[in-house]
This record gives sequence, structure tokens and C-alpha cells, in this order.
Amino acid sequence: MTTEQDTSIWIHPALVERYVFELAAFGKYGDTGVWRIVYSPEWVEAAQCFTGWCEEAGLDVHSDAVGNIWAKLEGREPGPSIVSGSHIDTQLPGGRYDGALGAIAALIAIRALKEQFGQPRRSLEALAFCEEESSRFPKAALWASRAITGFIPADEPDRLIAYSGETMSEAMRQIGLDPALIPTARRDDIDTFIELHIEQGPILEKEGYPVGIVNAITGPRTYYVTVTGESNHAGAFPMDIRHDAMAGFAEIASGLLNVANDMGRPAVTTIGRVAVKPGFSSAIPRTVEFTLDTRHPDPRQRQVLYARQEALMHEIAERRGLTVEWEILSEKNPCLSDPALVELLEDVARKEGIHALTMASGAAHDTQQMALISKVAMIFVRSKDGRSHTPEEFSSIEDIVLGIRLLAGTLHRLAY
Amino acid sequence: MTTEQDTSIWIHPALVERYVFELAAFGKYGDTGVWRIVYSPEWVEAAQCFTGWCEEAGLDVHSDAVGNIWAKLEGREPGPSIVSGSHIDTQLPGGRYDGALGAIAALIAIRALKEQFGQPRRSLEALAFCEEESSRFPKAALWASRAITGFIPADEPDRLIAYSGETMSEAMRQIGLDPALIPTARRDDIDTFIELHIEQGPILEKEGYPVGIVNAITGPRTYYVTVTGESNHAGAFPMDIRHDAMAGFAEIASGLLNVANDMGRPAVTTIGRVAVKPGFSSAIPRTVEFTLDTRHPDPRQRQVLYARQEALMHEIAERRGLTVEWEILSEKNPCLSDPALVELLEDVARKEGIHALTMASGAAHDTQQMALISKVAMIFVRSKDGRSHTPEEFSSIEDIVLGIRLLAGTLHRLAY
Repeated sequence: MTTEQDTSIWIHPALVERYVFELAAFGKYGDTGVWRIVYSPEWVEAAQCFTGWCEEAGLDVHSDAVGNIWAKLEGREPGPSIVSGSHIDTQLPGGRYDGALGAIAALIAIRALKEQFGQPRRSLEALAFCEEESSRFPKAALWASRAITGFIPADEPDRLIAYSGETMSEAMRQIGLDPALIPTARRDDIDTFIELHIEQGPILEKEGYPVGIVNAITGPRTYYVTVTGESNHAGAFPMDIRHDAMAGFAEIASGLLNVANDMGRPAVTTIGRVAVKPGFSSAIPRTVEFTLDTRHPDPRQRQVLYARQEALMHEIAERRGLTVEWEILSEKNPCLSDPALVELLEDVARKEGIHALTMASGAAHDTQQMALISKVAMIFVRSKDGRSHTPEEFSSIEDIVLGIRLLAGTLHRLAY
Repeated sequence: MTTEQDTSIWIHPALVERYVFELAAFGKYGDTGVWRIVYSPEWVEAAQCFTGWCEEAGLDVHSDAVGNIWAKLEGREPGPSIVSGSHIDTQLPGGRYDGALGAIAALIAIRALKEQFGQPRRSLEALAFCEEESSRFPKAALWASRAITGFIPADEPDRLIAYSGETMSEAMRQIGLDPALIPTARRDDIDTFIELHIEQGPILEKEGYPVGIVNAITGPRTYYVTVTGESNHAGAFPMDIRHDAMAGFAEIASGLLNVANDMGRPAVTTIGRVAVKPGFSSAIPRTVEFTLDTRHPDPRQRQVLYARQEALMHEIAERRGLTVEWEILSEKNPCLSDPALVELLEDVARKEGIHALTMASGAAHDTQQMALISKVAMIFVRSKDGRSHTPEEFSSIEDIVLGIRLLAGTLHRLAY
């Protein structure tokens, strides 16, 4: 590890490491885990700590109505801001890096720019989103960035229910936030948003890159599928006249996964939950219900993927004398990064000597919500074994510093 | 419906119908269902009712230590008995026929023989087993017939736990039975046991037979199988480098079912329960656990079935970089009926003009336990749509009367 860098922007590895470890202390879970759900006491402490660091850096800090922390380095010229950041809530438990790293990276990059280059031409802002993981409120889905972009209906804070039963309104009031003020969190003065995040996948590691430049975020769709046949006695019913929902499910599951396999990267399909009824070892299943999570970042290829998978389910069910029905539980369109911004990131990486892979993100991020009001792109940092949403997630300080240098260099080109 | 029959043994359809409906009133559940677990108040009432009918028929009735009801028509000669019967407990809920019909059939057949032929040469006994379904105590498995055959260890009544928490000992004491006396229920003086039961499958219906003669009871084995891979993010992990336990399970499940399909009747295989971990729609499954119920009545073919299925699981797991492990939860060897007894049943059916199919039973029955101490065979009565273990199970009084005539004719040939 060294602070000697072949670029004009110095990022101090020791500071990065200190911030990562200090923030992870709030909600520490076991040796390397973090359990920090939005608006919890741990979250309040983490937000206060982050706010303190922003003040130390000499930035103008404020919290908005949902608890997002904004730290601004005012530019000489008026006009919309260049913003970077990520979320500081975690999974149950998550690790030290997912989310938090992007908030820390934004702060450190802007602090370094301020220290080394002084006041920018255009305003820069570091942002800590209050919530992204839906780990306290299962239907919160991009709560923080929906507040910023104005996509929280007035009645939603009373409708969102936590796993432990309280509403979002109650959770907000408990830490002194007023749900009625949520509309004030809206921003319409953001020109560009760049989020640094761990990859959460193995592609950078397998291909040998420390960082990635995200040119698209995949479009996920989640189906809830029900295959229905006829339940009968496992011993007394011959195979050749069964309408076994499990036999249909097994063929359908193989087929669905094979469609994504055949299309190749970056198509992905996952069957993560299965419920069998009646669910006895000695009863032929009447129904098999399952979730089907299927994603592609290319808007046209995505439609091909879904059409092939839906046709396959129909064909197999019909051939086997079963019925198949589904509903779409959730869906997001792919989010394409701003092409000029991707080119700029690629150019900065080249000039800084940072080995960066341009790639799609298979996971969802606040960036796709921010894309509704600004130009966006993301920077990925290599994840050990592609792990995330676990205390075992890990990214090296060396890789992180490269990611922050890419971020800082890009913010420099945009703002100075 | 008619009471005119072309044989010397008269079975009164109206009496059959009355007994079926009256017994079904104890534990009545909805219009056609019965919910009558062993030693419950409904079960006590049903046992008392059945006892009363046996007394009305002029038989010597007694209950043994576990509550089995024995109704004897003493023969002129000493020696072991010819016994027929089935169980009077039900599923949750079951219907009117599964079990109860065989106890009623035995009583009606012996009553008819007594009325029409007087005292037999050899003793005849009708038997109502107290328990077969394991519907109160999930591990009771053939409790009644294990008592009769001496296969209940002394500590078992305290070890068996009901779904609602009480022990078998507690349940027995609550209705005045003493668990310490269980060994007295043992019998070693049974020459032949014939159980009449609904088929619980569709074979008789599909092939157009009212009754079946069972020449073997299948040998079931239940595995609990765990397929283990690696959990990762459903979006960020490319298909081509996943170790998706669900992909492995889907291929394995199809393969296991196909092995039984390929072997043809009477091989059967069922995958009735599946548990996926971690079980989130957006997480690639780390493990898929499932039950594998796989049966064949032929001892040699059965080993071929299991060997092919085990090899298939190993092959698929290895090829996919997954691990597969299993334990055998339960297993019963196939039970072969006494060949001479099967021939006698076939001969009686022929002479009585009863169209009967000789076939294997795919379901387990008390008969396989009774086979440890006596010659055995079974008579099946056609089940509408092959249904059982449901209020919808149905067999017509016409078919039932044919089954009882076959039973009575066979008992006549054995005992007179």
C-alpha cells in the first residue's frame, strides 16, 4: 500500500480504511458484519458520524426530510450539482462495504478535491442515502432516492410496514423526522449522479480488473408462478397417469434457467423460493409455486428473454396436462448510463492508469432512481468471491482507492 | 341395488350402507369427511358403536391393551384364527372409506357367514385396528398391528409425541388404557389375515374392475436429500459460473421421476416436499432439500430402482460442482401375499362371477405388519378417481358389496 500515486489527486488509503472500519462499528455484528437498518439507533449514530466527517472536511452539511445527508462543496458558478454517494443502511446482517463504501468514497473524493484544488467551478455534493436495502421495510424499495426524485406518494409512509410491525411514519417520528415534510426532500437541481459501489458479483475478480464502469443497470422482473396438477397418493398412483405438479416444475425450472444460459451473459435467471402443496412426502404435489427473478440490461434482449421463458412455461404445462399461471411481483426497466459520462469515466481510467472493465450491473441500485432526474453512471469495486449481503463481503483498500481515484478524477473533470 | 345374488352368501347392501354412514358420523367433518384420530372422543364413540354391532351379530367381542377390537366367531376345532379387518382412525380429515370399510366388511362378512352357515370349523375374527394413519402421532406407523405382532418397544409409548404435544402414554391413559399392558395385545394364534381396503389409486377404475386382489404391497423408501451449491446475488452472478442448487435440483428431480417412468408400473417416485435456502427471490439457492418417496413391490426391481436413482443424483451433482447427501428417513421391505391365498381369492372371484384384477398395492397397510405372524392377502375396492385421504374419497355400495362377497366367500372356503 502506498500514498505515492501517478496522478495529481491523492487519496489516502489510511483514511479510507479508518472511515470504513469506524462506520462499520455502528451496528457491528460479529467480527465483520453490520446490522444497521434505517432509522435504528445504530443508523442514527452512523449518520451523526458521517455528518461529523463532512463537517471536518469543511463541507456544508444538512439532512433532508427522510434523513439523507448532503455535504456540499459550493462551486463558483451557479447551476445544478454534480453528486456522488450511496446508502448507509445494511442487510440483516450485511458487511462493511455494500452501500457505506459509496458514501465514504464520495466524501473522501470531494474532500481530496477541495484540499488539492480548492473551490470548484460547479458545485459538488457527497450524499449518504438513508435507505436502499428494504431490510426494515420490505416494500420500501429505493426509499431514499424516491424521496429525492419525488416518487413517494403522500399516503405511503403510513402504508409501509416494517418486519416488526411499525409503519414508516412511526419509525420516522421516533427519530424526530416528520413524514409530512417528505416532499421537501425533492431535488431538481442535480446534473450528474455517480455512485461507487462494490460489484456484488464475481466478474471483475474473474476477469482480473480492480474496478468496473457501469454502462447499464439490468432490468429485473420477478414473477410468482403457480404450476397446478393433481394431488394423489404417492404409492397408489401410477407414474403414467399422474398430473404431478413437481414433475412439471422440475422441467420448467431447468428450461427457464437454460434460456438464460443459452442467451449468455448478461442474462440471468434465478428461482429462489419454492412452495409445494400439500407438502407431504407421500402426496403427489398438487401445486408448486415459485419465484422467478429474470434480468437483462438490454431493453430488447430483455423482452426476448421473457417471451422465451413465458412460451416455455406454457408449452411444458400444456404438454403435461398442468396449468401454469403467474403474476409479476415487481419490475424495473433497465437503466442506461449516460454515454458521455461512461466515455469520460473510461477516459479518466485510461489516463490515470486504472485497469477498468465497462460492464452492466446485475443488481439494482439507487442510481436507477436518480436516472429519472439526472445523468448517471456507476463505478464498481471488485468483490472478493463476488460476495455481498453477508458479513463475508470484502474489497481490498487497494481496489477501493483505485475506485475513489477514478471517481475523484471524473468529478474533477466535470466540476473544475 | 339388489339383494338378489348368484351365490349362497348374501350381503345386504342396505346394512353395508348404514354401517358406513353411521360410523362416519363419529368425527364427521363437513359433508363427507371424517376427522377421527386415535384415542380421541370421536374414536372412543366409533369403537363403542363398532363393539355394539359385533355384539348384535352374536360375536364374542373384546378390546385389547391398545384398543383394537376383536370379534370372534368360535370354531368347532381348536387352532389359530382366520382374521379380517382394517383400521378405524382417519386422516386430517379423511373420508368414510379408508380403513373403516375394512372393519365393517369383516364384521358383515362374518355375520353373514354365521347367519347363513352357523358355526364354522375354524375360528373367524373381525378386527378393528385402533390406529394406522399416524395422523395424531406422526411416528406411530402401524401402531395397532405392531402391538399385535409384538413390535412396540417398552419405552415407545413415552417417546411417541402427538402433533399437539402429548405422549402416546398420556393419550392412552386419558381413555383408560394402560401402556404397561401393551405386551398383552400380542397374538401368536393367527393363521391367516385378509384386509379389505379401498384401492386409493385409479388402476381398478381405469382398467374397469370393481375389486382387486393384492399379491404384494410395495416396498417404500423415503430419502431426505440435500443438494448444496453456493448462494450469491441473483443479479450480479453470471449463469455460467454459478453453483445453483436449484438448477441441480431441477435436473435431479426430472431424472428421478424419469427413472420410475422408464421402469414402468408398478415403480413410483414422488418428490412431495422441498425446502430452499436461503429462500429469497433474489438469492441463488445454496441448498435445496427434498423428500424422495420411491417404491417397488418386487424386491429385486426395487434395488435396481434405488441404485439407478442414487447413481443419477451423484452424477448430476458431480457434473454441476454441487454436493448431494441423503439419509433414509424410513423404509419397508415389500410384503408378498401368500401365493395359495391369492390363488384362493382368484378362484372364489371366478366362481362368484366377480371381475377381479390381481395387482400390487402401492400404499402401505397393516397387512404388511400382520405378514410377520400370519399368511396375508388383501382385497381392494375401486376408488372413484383414485382418491383417498380426503373427504372426497368414494366407493360405490355395489363395488363394496362385491368386495365383501369376495371376502366372505374366501373366509367360507378357509373356515367351513
